[in-house]
Amino acid sequence: MLVAGASVAHGQVQSLSVSAGAQWVDLTHDFDASTIYWPTESGFQLTVDKFGMTEKGYFYASKRFAAAEHGGTHLDAPIHFSKEGHTVDQVTLDRLIGEAAVIDVRDACRDDPDYQVGVGDLHRWETQQGRQLVDVIVLIRTGYATFWQDRRRYLGTDQTGPDAVSQLHFPGLDPMAARWLADHRPVKAIGIDTASIDHGQSERFQSHVTLFKHNIPVFENVADLSRLPAQGATVVALPMKIAKGTGAPLRIIASLPSN
Amino acid sequence: MLVAGASVAHGQVQSLSVSAGAQWVDLTHDFDASTIYWPTESGFQLTVDKFGMTEKGYFYASKRFAAAEHGGTHLDAPIHFSKEGHTVDQVTLDRLIGEAAVIDVRDACRDDPDYQVGVGDLHRWETQQGRQLVDVIVLIRTGYATFWQDRRRYLGTDQTGPDAVSQLHFPGLDPMAARWLADHRPVKAIGIDTASIDHGQSERFQSHVTLFKHNIPVFENVADLSRLPAQGATVVALPMKIAKGTGAPLRIIASLPSN
Ligand SMILES: [Zn+2]
Ligand SMILES: [Zn+2]
Repeated sequence: MLVAGASVAHGQVQSLSVSAGAQWVDLTHDFDASTIYWPTESGFQLTVDKFGMTEKGYFYASKRFAAAEHGGTHLDAPIHFSKEGHTVDQVTLDRLIGEAAVIDVRDACRDDPDYQVGVGDLHRWETQQGRQLVDVIVLIRTGYATFWQDRRRYLGTDQTGPDAVSQLHFPGLDPMAARWLADHRPVKAIGIDTASIDHGQSERFQSHVTLFKHNIPVFENVADLSRLPAQGATVVALPMKIAKGTGAPLRIIASLPSN
Repeated sequence: MLVAGASVAHGQVQSLSVSAGAQWVDLTHDFDASTIYWPTESGFQLTVDKFGMTEKGYFYASKRFAAAEHGGTHLDAPIHFSKEGHTVDQVTLDRLIGEAAVIDVRDACRDDPDYQVGVGDLHRWETQQGRQLVDVIVLIRTGYATFWQDRRRYLGTDQTGPDAVSQLHFPGLDPMAARWLADHRPVKAIGIDTASIDHGQSERFQSHVTLFKHNIPVFENVADLSRLPAQGATVVALPMKIAKGTGAPLRIIASLPSN
């Protein structure tokens, strides 16, 4: 198994280019009442427990939160679609830290909200950058992050409930491209600036299934990627460490290469 | 205001020593049913929504979670004890990424569960390391992380509810030392491997109050620090990005200097 072998070789983070004076970019959307969740989910809830002066004379504020694992900027752990796959706490740091390979498909997605990123798009990156998609964190830039404040534009529908699922329209990764990566390119992880690695019209989520069978984790609802170059940025993507989680809120940042 | 000035100068991360082949250490406890919260809190709740084969023939698993902001390995945002202080989403990345200065006070804490780390302990680090605590993330190593699985030993009590609070016994930072840091040392953040930056017997939480007045964030319930040297490791501490949060689950990791 190619990817399994690659995964073993991943024991250390091989090539980080974080240097003195590094500039960091936050690729994470806020969690708040407007954070986008799947149409069948109720969203992020934050409740105030205390806010004000105490009897003893000091100010004190605290809150509590509740949410589905899969919403906002989050990690999909492989167990989400693969019974034997890694849970959140089992996803190793070497898969969460590494060089970003940014696949820019904004042109195709502008014309087609159902666009699926194909093997051709991945090949084009390789040709233009003069290297293979090996040991990188693939970040797919559809441009949809800019629609985040507009649920209808971002998901294709602002309806909620089970009937809204068939109305979802946003780009994703073609299951054939997921298969090609799994078979031929030992990538660390794959992220996308839409609500799901499978496009909105997917019914069987075959990109999830294929990637997770190979324990390749996925980052969804990644924020605006406009400041990242096609290669050379370093991603650090740290999920909340939920034991046995199928997914988790993810804080994902990148350091820009210093030129 | 010295620290405010230093904070402005923090626009970039100044000195990172993350190099090729860097080895990362996870300093984060799992979130699960046994995760330690304050005696007045109910703990971390994870609920299974789906787990099994779907009608369409693929496996699917998802869960949801609920928790107080302050429990497990977490960030205290300054607003927790300072009305004008930063919320979680306002804590900048330059305060969350930086060189670790590990203050080892295990010997003192072995004899005294109520130990408060003093200015003398901080001075000792400076003398031994030949530098000042400037632009670093201070990590206080009491050794209590090794008691994490034993709530009674870790907190001093395994009782819960309001009456248990007076029974808390664990080390913290002396408010005088917090004051000295705030006035004289522009540190990025302060972490500790106990349940609170103020020791268990604190009633007015003056270390919290002083640090947060100066917008110095705090990391609590940090996991075992035994693999970190006194200086030279690089910390990356990324909280869940809760808008207006007073605290948040924190994933904290460190890269060891390569020697
Ligand atoms: Zn997901
Ligand atoms: Zn706290």
